[in-house]
Amino acid sequence: MGRNVCIIGGGMSLWGVRQATARDLYQEAGKACFDDVPGLSNKDVDGLLVGSAFTERSNFQTHLAPLVAEYLGIKPKNICCRVELLCASGSSGIILAYGLIKSGLADVILVTGGEKLYTPQRWEVFYSELGTGDHDFDGAQGLGLPPPFFSMVAQKHMKEYGTTEEQLSMVSVKNRRNGARNPKAQFQKEITLEDALNAPPIVRPLKLFDCCPVTDGAAAVIIASEERAREYTDKPLVYIKGTGQASVNNASANMPSMTTWEALKIASQEAYRKAGVKPSDIDVAQTHDCFTISEIIEYEDLGFCEKGEGGLFVEEGRSDFGGDVPVNTDGGLLSCGHPFGGTGIRQAIEILRQLRGDAFKQVEGARTGLTHNLSGLTAAHTVLIYGRDV
Amino acid sequence: MGRNVCIIGGGMSLWGVRQATARDLYQEAGKACFDDVPGLSNKDVDGLLVGSAFTERSNFQTHLAPLVAEYLGIKPKNICCRVELLCASGSSGIILAYGLIKSGLADVILVTGGEKLYTPQRWEVFYSELGTGDHDFDGAQGLGLPPPFFSMVAQKHMKEYGTTEEQLSMVSVKNRRNGARNPKAQFQKEITLEDALNAPPIVRPLKLFDCCPVTDGAAAVIIASEERAREYTDKPLVYIKGTGQASVNNASANMPSMTTWEALKIASQEAYRKAGVKPSDIDVAQTHDCFTISEIIEYEDLGFCEKGEGGLFVEEGRSDFGGDVPVNTDGGLLSCGHPFGGTGIRQAIEILRQLRGDAFKQVEGARTGLTHNLSGLTAAHTVLIYGRDV
Repeated sequence: MGRNVCIIGGGMSLWGVRQATARDLYQEAGKACFDDVPGLSNKDVDGLLVGSAFTERSNFQTHLAPLVAEYLGIKPKNICCRVELLCASGSSGIILAYGLIKSGLADVILVTGGEKLYTPQRWEVFYSELGTGDHDFDGAQGLGLPPPFFSMVAQKHMKEYGTTEEQLSMVSVKNRRNGARNPKAQFQKEITLEDALNAPPIVRPLKLFDCCPVTDGAAAVIIASEERAREYTDKPLVYIKGTGQASVNNASANMPSMTTWEALKIASQEAYRKAGVKPSDIDVAQTHDCFTISEIIEYEDLGFCEKGEGGLFVEEGRSDFGGDVPVNTDGGLLSCGHPFGGTGIRQAIEILRQLRGDAFKQVEGARTGLTHNLSGLTAAHTVLIYGRDV
Repeated sequence: MGRNVCIIGGGMSLWGVRQATARDLYQEAGKACFDDVPGLSNKDVDGLLVGSAFTERSNFQTHLAPLVAEYLGIKPKNICCRVELLCASGSSGIILAYGLIKSGLADVILVTGGEKLYTPQRWEVFYSELGTGDHDFDGAQGLGLPPPFFSMVAQKHMKEYGTTEEQLSMVSVKNRRNGARNPKAQFQKEITLEDALNAPPIVRPLKLFDCCPVTDGAAAVIIASEERAREYTDKPLVYIKGTGQASVNNASANMPSMTTWEALKIASQEAYRKAGVKPSDIDVAQTHDCFTISEIIEYEDLGFCEKGEGGLFVEEGRSDFGGDVPVNTDGGLLSCGHPFGGTGIRQAIEILRQLRGDAFKQVEGARTGLTHNLSGLTAAHTVLIYGRDV
């Protein structure tokens, strides 16, 4: 039903600790995005979606979308609003743009996302973090901040499946190696297994390199109908094939299981079904490695390996270049950083490049790619599948 | 392109100053909504969109959608996120749900919206208000708070077109008369023209009854494909026919005109075009009467009357029952109040009832209805057109 929809370009600001305002970051990302599609001007864009989680507190700016439209010279007539699902705000925007274009309600939408988190008012970001889970229950007990929660997840996975601290560290070593090639990443430096294992603890067993950093940054992509895509670009077309976004609980006390993420299974099955593909068809994936344990559980619940074998999957190199499915080929959250609303957009850009054939390091012959964003205390999961074939 | 989409039910919490948390309000609205479609259960809902503007500050709660899903017993698999375009967050959600269902990506979406604004931390709401326009430019100069801005708009419209304070007051007298019939409205009491004219000034020429109040409340609607709609309800079907959302500036200094709202013209023309109707086809409308002057300009820029004749339009009763197009038949923002994310949903509910034939006071034979939401310092405009005919 509806028409074919493509992602035709994307770009990012430099991610890291930036002496820049949020509007600077959106402008920098927007310019990089338009530079990626030389045939397209901001006048061709008829819709704008902005994914941002903390803008009201960290920038004191509500009603962000019209501001970004103004700074990018876009005059939307079909849609111009902000989308928020915390860490998955960006990918939520891509799903919504997909619906609007597929149904014929819009033709060309710029989806951007980002955060400015390093501000003089650090308590504002802290207050927002306490609303990551259920503020009145989780947050009031200190579970608003993610590290304690993911430490419990890691401990439980280690106990249930024998996952080791070395295996956790291998995720960060791989992703830092990939990120070292990415000129927009917050950390562009490799680390060794020893560095990771000997790093200072954040909340045991999670150590410094097991945790993604706090990041300023933005990213933007152009989503268009296939017909319009052909007008603007000569590069190989990359289609959105399937999407899913699921939640089965919010408060952490209501999680069916800490180590099997039910909502991820539902979201990915929905995306696989719509795309008409199975896990073994995925050639390259960007998953939500906010902590190393997350990526390990994601291998399992996305169906890349059996339950409990995620640790072995990274240890055997099956998520690295040359393996079953290279994961986080641009460095992931662990290298690129995590400006919440920007992350889903960054993931889409890397999949676009991998499928188009112009990635920093290419997964040869990749034709089908997947992105996965988690948000909150794993309370919601967002999966998109892209392909060179419709 | 795509399939037909219907609005099949809706309900509201009581709006006003509520001794209730945000989650209580969403639950109250959700229950009222499900009660309106007895054939539908929360198990049938495959997507959720939540429109809320100030949740991060006023409730310290980010990642609101999974929380609302949990409290309504919904397990979304296609979409579960929050939408923010300040005062138009709710209608933005309806447009996005329309796209997802029309394109076949989802079947049944609950769109809810609301705010809890009366809290012990009143400064949080004040900070968010300062981000209504461009925080760093407008907000820093005190133009974040809407009354001074809309006072300038009113003064300019009075000077350019001879609009009078009496005509402004007539808008509030009409809307308070309509609101007196609405059991969910914040103010359910009529006022006289003398009450309005003699009320204490807020920012001249705007007086107390020219301004909508601060409100706690939530509202919810069910949007579904026509096929699924027929499964769940025997009531007359109401279709979404056309939508538009436009912005041409954000900072108030960049407004092309203070008294002709360019973005409203673009958004409404886009909605009329998609719906295949013209202004004279609209039988009933809910427009954004945040201030009385807004409703007068909206008559003009929606095309209900000529430019500059908005004052006369209300004076001659053309926006009242029995007139050209009854406007704000449920009391509008001036009576119902304005919990930002809830307003667009409330408007949709009243149009649903008017077209279905079970409104508090019926516009006889209404077959086509319109909602209009403005947001920010008139920086964005959102228009939806609904009809009994596809």
